[in-house]
Amino acid sequence: MKYHTEYLWFNTKNHREYINITNEIDKILKTSNVKEGIVLVSAMHITAGVYINDAESGLIQDIDEWLECIAPFDINYNHHMTGETNGDSHLKSLMIGHEVIIPITDGKLDLGPWQQIYYAEFDGQRKKRLIVKVMGD
Amino acid sequence: MKYHTEYLWFNTKNHREYINITNEIDKILKTSNVKEGIVLVSAMHITAGVYINDAESGLIQDIDEWLECIAPFDINYNHHMTGETNGDSHLKSLMIGHEVIIPITDGKLDLGPWQQIYYAEFDGQRKKRLIVKVMGD
Amino acid sequence: MKYHTEYLWFNTKNHREYINITNEIDKILKTSNVKEGIVLVSAMHITAGVYINDAESGLIQDIDEWLECIAPFDINYNHHMTGETNGDSHLKSLMIGHEVIIPITDGKLDLGPWQQIYYAEFDGQRKKRLIVKVMGD
Repeated sequence: MKYHTEYLWFNTKNHREYINITNEIDKILKTSNVKEGIVLVSAMHITAGVYINDAESGLIQDIDEWLECIAPFDINYNHHMTGETNGDSHLKSLMIGHEVIIPITDGKLDLGPWQQIYYAEFDGQRKKRLIVKVMGD
Repeated sequence: MKYHTEYLWFNTKNHREYINITNEIDKILKTSNVKEGIVLVSAMHITAGVYINDAESGLIQDIDEWLECIAPFDINYNHHMTGETNGDSHLKSLMIGHEVIIPITDGKLDLGPWQQIYYAEFDGQRKKRLIVKVMGD
Repeated sequence: MKYHTEYLWFNTKNHREYINITNEIDKILKTSNVKEGIVLVSAMHITAGVYINDAESGLIQDIDEWLECIAPFDINYNHHMTGETNGDSHLKSLMIGHEVIIPITDGKLDLGPWQQIYYAEFDGQRKKRLIVKVMGD
């Protein structure tokens, strides 16, 4: 059993941002030399997410508007009593999820034709980290 | 370490459909002969989901109505500028999630008494695929 | 490859409750003696959830109010035709998710500085179970 762990760092220009990390995960898989197994991709911050969906700019805008509608910025959240202003970012993270598991078959990410892996930043403009752990043979 | 991978195909009659796949996953587990480990069940399309909940028809109707309320069909999504009409299907997929990991103990899916595994189709009437990967000993 | 499985039981005082189980998961990891791998933490009931986020009481209240807003208690759900009254609990479980996978590196839960593991009860005051499965070397 092989284990290979890497950390990716992000520091986005915008408060919210959606970054396609499929190529980075693919490179890490190749480095690991694992042919059969899984890769866990998990945000290490509680105001960010990881999800799998389409690399289509209109849809990404839809996702952003939808999350903003369901968990709006600048509402008077209880969390803001601490001095924080990012209550919405926590809820957006819970909504979209913070981790995905991708199957590895024949040395490749076994994704469908349109599946792309995204890092979703909901409270950016600071350094944040994501863990990628490959497990298999 | 054993790895056993199968793909399930779906081509639903309806635009949206919820299909109990617990028995299929159980059969795949038996074929794999894995006694201890995990099984990953993951939709390979970005307008479908996989979730675990109750096999009760009223609740399934509630889930469908709830998802339709939160991510309605036929809204003027930005994604539709591409000619697609399934913006809601993507959001429903993100809402419900596209994958589950089920523990395997003593050669069985280690589920609670009411936990059933569902494939959720949000843009059906076409061929779609799901991956099942069993890992363990 | 080592496998270590434990079950945690809950019987909450309140109908809805959010319980930090990070220390319990950490203890189980130490018992397993796994240094590299993953731990699956998964609710075995369909009206409970498991998520990772902040241990801040205001935010926990925000999460509870947010879930109640999106999937309100005591609505006339179809599920209630069975005599049940917990339709909202099922939807809240689907919203927050019922499982997380935590990476293990150097014998530790490889979590970010603010990541805490929570059991979310949405229909409590009865005995419920959660599975913790550690896999690795």
